[in-house]
Amino acid sequence: MNTLENLIVLLSRLPGIGKKSASRMAYSLLKGEESYNRVLGQSIAELKEKIHKCSQCGNYTEEELCSICSSKDRDELTLCVVEESQDIMMIESTGDYKGLYFVLHGVLSPLDGIGPTELGFDRLLDRINTLGVKELILATNPTLEGDSTALYIKHLLEGKEIEISRIASGLPVGGDMEYADKMSISRALKGRMNY
Amino acid sequence: MNTLENLIVLLSRLPGIGKKSASRMAYSLLKGEESYNRVLGQSIAELKEKIHKCSQCGNYTEEELCSICSSKDRDELTLCVVEESQDIMMIESTGDYKGLYFVLHGVLSPLDGIGPTELGFDRLLDRINTLGVKELILATNPTLEGDSTALYIKHLLEGKEIEISRIASGLPVGGDMEYADKMSISRALKGRMNY
Repeated sequence: MNTLENLIVLLSRLPGIGKKSASRMAYSLLKGEESYNRVLGQSIAELKEKIHKCSQCGNYTEEELCSICSSKDRDELTLCVVEESQDIMMIESTGDYKGLYFVLHGVLSPLDGIGPTELGFDRLLDRINTLGVKELILATNPTLEGDSTALYIKHLLEGKEIEISRIASGLPVGGDMEYADKMSISRALKGRMNY
Repeated sequence: MNTLENLIVLLSRLPGIGKKSASRMAYSLLKGEESYNRVLGQSIAELKEKIHKCSQCGNYTEEELCSICSSKDRDELTLCVVEESQDIMMIESTGDYKGLYFVLHGVLSPLDGIGPTELGFDRLLDRINTLGVKELILATNPTLEGDSTALYIKHLLEGKEIEISRIASGLPVGGDMEYADKMSISRALKGRMNY
């Protein structure tokens, strides 16, 4: 296999990139500027060397602690549990949350061998105890796995004096009921609030 | 700007990659294996160092001549003019063409300052004369620019005893060869008409 074919195979392993997109990207790199290729290539090669997980919450960071854990302006009594590091970015973009986070880096998936130990539930409990968390928001995705994971964490904390909530799921804002799926409409009805 | 944000900006400069896809790719690289990142990064960084244009046809190659120009099994009296190197890959995948190629690496586009000189029409004429080409297939894309470029080349060769054809049926007008299916390209080759 030659250099170009090899690059196309490598690129098509990226998420959402098929063979056609990978080929288009490779030819674009060939046609583009060498300096850009050098910078991009180096960034990719050295990514995991420069970035690691925050020792407190698991968010990706270049420092020992991420910018959220090291901030003095966050409410340390509220903790939000998310599946992935990028979910933090999405929640932060709303500006509606001022507490701390805990990243699971996955969901419970017994068939894939991912259980409570692999997701670091002991670290989560440690973190909750250390901070003295009063409110826990379970913000795993509204999928079968995300729901199971949230439920498991809720059971783990039974008996503790912590207010536990689950992010609402239903119709997306700007959505149209005509095109929504049954499950979303069902959840939207079950989760209805006084108005 | 930190390392991760910087990588997302770099990735979103790739064709067809928006900010959302770039972010998804970056987090996937962070979560994935370091060895893959190293190999991919190095491939991208060194791409233009390893690959250059074939001195005869302009196709991308790692050798002095590309595999098609250096093959003994090709019909040297037939030349197919294409816009981009990847168009060769598409035509070769049909197995319907046995002649040689000439890559323009673009189309005539006066507004962008791309004229006959920039596209190397003198090299094209040299190549036609050297090979003693009897048949020329104009396989630029069926777009306004591709058509103009084909027409320009046809006029350049007026008076010479060369059978000139233009790929025709099969490709949707306004489309791009890079995204066409094999059958459409095959039909376009077989259904070419005197030009």
